[in-house]
Amino acid sequence: MKILILGGDGFLGWPTAMHLSQAGHEVLIVDNYLRRRLCLEQSVSPLFPVPDLGRRVQLWREITGLSIEARIGDLSDWSFISSVMQGFVPDALVHYAEQPAAPYSMLNRHAAALTLQNNLMATLNVIYGVREFAPACHIVKLGTMGEYGTPNIDIEEGWLEIEHKGRTDKFLYPRQAGSLYHTTKIMDTDMLWLYARVWKIRVTDLMQGPVYGLETYENAGHEELYSFLNYDEIFGTVLNRFIVQAVAGYPLTVYGAGGQTRGFLNIKDTLNCIELAIRTPAEPGQLRIFNQFTETFSVNGLADKVASVGRQMGLSVEIKSIANPRKEAEDHRYIAAHTGLLDLGLEPHVLTDERLADIIRLVMRYKDRIDPNQFLRNIKWA
Amino acid sequence: MKILILGGDGFLGWPTAMHLSQAGHEVLIVDNYLRRRLCLEQSVSPLFPVPDLGRRVQLWREITGLSIEARIGDLSDWSFISSVMQGFVPDALVHYAEQPAAPYSMLNRHAAALTLQNNLMATLNVIYGVREFAPACHIVKLGTMGEYGTPNIDIEEGWLEIEHKGRTDKFLYPRQAGSLYHTTKIMDTDMLWLYARVWKIRVTDLMQGPVYGLETYENAGHEELYSFLNYDEIFGTVLNRFIVQAVAGYPLTVYGAGGQTRGFLNIKDTLNCIELAIRTPAEPGQLRIFNQFTETFSVNGLADKVASVGRQMGLSVEIKSIANPRKEAEDHRYIAAHTGLLDLGLEPHVLTDERLADIIRLVMRYKDRIDPNQFLRNIKWA
Repeated sequence: MKILILGGDGFLGWPTAMHLSQAGHEVLIVDNYLRRRLCLEQSVSPLFPVPDLGRRVQLWREITGLSIEARIGDLSDWSFISSVMQGFVPDALVHYAEQPAAPYSMLNRHAAALTLQNNLMATLNVIYGVREFAPACHIVKLGTMGEYGTPNIDIEEGWLEIEHKGRTDKFLYPRQAGSLYHTTKIMDTDMLWLYARVWKIRVTDLMQGPVYGLETYENAGHEELYSFLNYDEIFGTVLNRFIVQAVAGYPLTVYGAGGQTRGFLNIKDTLNCIELAIRTPAEPGQLRIFNQFTETFSVNGLADKVASVGRQMGLSVEIKSIANPRKEAEDHRYIAAHTGLLDLGLEPHVLTDERLADIIRLVMRYKDRIDPNQFLRNIKWA
Repeated sequence: MKILILGGDGFLGWPTAMHLSQAGHEVLIVDNYLRRRLCLEQSVSPLFPVPDLGRRVQLWREITGLSIEARIGDLSDWSFISSVMQGFVPDALVHYAEQPAAPYSMLNRHAAALTLQNNLMATLNVIYGVREFAPACHIVKLGTMGEYGTPNIDIEEGWLEIEHKGRTDKFLYPRQAGSLYHTTKIMDTDMLWLYARVWKIRVTDLMQGPVYGLETYENAGHEELYSFLNYDEIFGTVLNRFIVQAVAGYPLTVYGAGGQTRGFLNIKDTLNCIELAIRTPAEPGQLRIFNQFTETFSVNGLADKVASVGRQMGLSVEIKSIANPRKEAEDHRYIAAHTGLLDLGLEPHVLTDERLADIIRLVMRYKDRIDPNQFLRNIKWA
C-alpha cells in the first residue's frame, strides 16, 4: 500500500513510518518541523538529539535496505499538500500533523492561535486533498481520549445512543475537553464527520490516551532512530516525564490531588493500532472511532509505580504534589470502553514492572543529559 | 452601557447597532466588510445599494442626533482587536463577525478555508480580548439552530441531561451540522465553553434560526438605513428569497421534497432577543444558551404562505421543486424548545399574512432591480 504519514517527524510519526515501511508499505513522510521549532521557541529539548528526517531516512536505508521518502512542507499550504496528494495518491494516510501539546495551547494568545490555525487547516486541507486527488484514501486520524473529558457516565467508543423523552438517536459521544489543544481535536472530529456524511470520505478517528515508552520493534538497538523523548511539562507525556524525574533524583511532580485518571498505552501498541486500522479500512462515508489505550491509571498510581520500580533499581525516588497548573477534576470517575481495537486483534503490551524497568534503564543511559530546569515550565491554565 | 458590535455592517449587525443606540447605549461598531467583498467575489448584490458604515453612521446622527462609532478592521488581526478592546472596554459585545453563508462555505477549498479561519480566529481573539482587557464583558454570540441538525429526539435549549447505564450527566446538546459554516458555529460553542470553564468568561450563545424581514423599529421610513436584502442562493435567507422570487414572477425554488423544517424569526425579534440577553447578562463562568426563533415552518409551508399572500396581492406565483443542492434530510422530525427568551420577556412577531404582505410590498417597490440570474448559483454540497 502507499501510505502517507503526515507529521512523520514526530514522537509517533517517525516510529509509525518505520513500522509501516518494515511491513512492506511504500511510505512517504510529510512534516514542517513545527514541533522542533516550538521546542526551540520554548527552550526545551529532548533527552538526546534526534537527527533530521534526511539523516533518519538515510540511516533507515542503511540498516534495512528499505526506502522511506520525506518531504518538508506545511500542510496549511494548499499548494504543497495538493501537489503531494496528486503526486503520491496514497491508499491510506496517517494524520499526526498537529501542534501536540495541551500546555502549549494554553500558553498565550499567539500559541492558541497557532494551535487552532495549524490543526484545523491541516485537517481541512487533508480532507480536500483526499476529495480531489485520492477519494478512496483511508484517513487515519489521531484524536485523543481528552476529547471526552471526564464525564460522570461511562465513556463509550466514539458514539452514544441517547434516549430522550421516549425517543432515541445515535450521536457522536458528547465531548468537552480541558484545553484548546484537546478542543481542536473535537473540532477535527466534527469536521471529519461532516465530510464523511457529505462526501463519503473514509475515516478512522483514534481517540488515543497518553503514550509512554520509546523503543519499538524497528528502532531497538539504533539510538539514532529513537523518537523525541521530551520530559518537560509542555511536550513530555506524564509517564515519560516521571521516569526522567526519577532517574534525575528529582521529585515526581504530581498535579494537585493526583486522582486524575486516563487511559495509557505503550508506543508499540500505538504502532499496532495504526497498522490494524490501516489493514481494515473504514467504509466510504464511515467515521469509525476507536478508543486507543490499553490500561487506565491515575497520576498517583503511575507515580507510585515509577517510585516502586525505581527504588528496586536503586534510585532514590520521591513524590511531590504541586499546585495544579491545569483546570481539571482531580478525583473523578473514569470508565471508558476500548474494545474496538482488541476486536481487530490488538495484543496489549501492558505496563509490567519489567517493561517499566526497561524504560528506566534506557533513560539512565542518558542521565547526564537531564536538565532539571526543563521539568516545570509554569504554564497556568488560568 | 458600552456595547461593541462585531460585524456591525451586516444584515443583523447594523440594525442591532441602531437598536441599541436608540435604547441609550454607547455603541461601537467593528467590521472588515467581508460580506461585501464576498458578494462582489461571487457577483451577487443586494436588492438595493447599502451605504457604507461611514455614511450610515452619519445618516443615523442626522436623523436621531445619536452617535454610533464605526471602525473598519479585521478581527483575525490581534493588534486591531486588542487596541479596540483596550480603548473601548465594552460592558457587552455582540459577536456577529463571521462568514455567514452555508453555501459559500461549501463552494470550494478557498471558501472553506476562509470560513474556518475567519470564524474561529475572530472568536478566539474576542475571547482573548475580553480576557485581557475587559474581563467583566458579557459576550453575546450568534450561533445557529443549524448546530443541532435534525435529530430524531427533541432539540433542547443548548444542554441535555443524559442517562446512561443508570448514571446521569449534563452535556452540551450533541451537535451535528449540515455545512462547514454551521460546523464552525459548533466549534465556536466548544471554544466558548472551554474558556467559560477555565477563565470564567460570561457568554450567551444564541442558537438562531433563519431571519426574515427588513424593516425594524429604527429604519422604518429611512431606506438608506435598511440592511442588505440578498435574494441569491448564497447569502439570501429562504423566506426573503421566496418573496423576491414571487415579486419577480420567478418560481419559488424549493429544494427537493421541501419538508425541511426550521425555526424562523422576524428581524425585530432578533433585535429584542439581543437586547434581552444584554439586559440580563450571563454569570461569570456561565455559557448560557437560548434557542432564538419564534415559529417553525417547513420550506413547503413557507412557499405556500408566500404563494397564497402573493396571489391575494395580484402576483402570479408558482412553486417549483428543484434538485436539492444540499445534503440534508427533506422529511424529518423537528421539535425544538425555545422558552428561554420568552421567559426573559420576548413577545414574538409571528408571521401573519399582514406582516408577510408588508414585506412583499416593500420588495415590490424595488421590483425593477431584481436580477433573476442571482436566484440560483448552483453551489452543490457534493
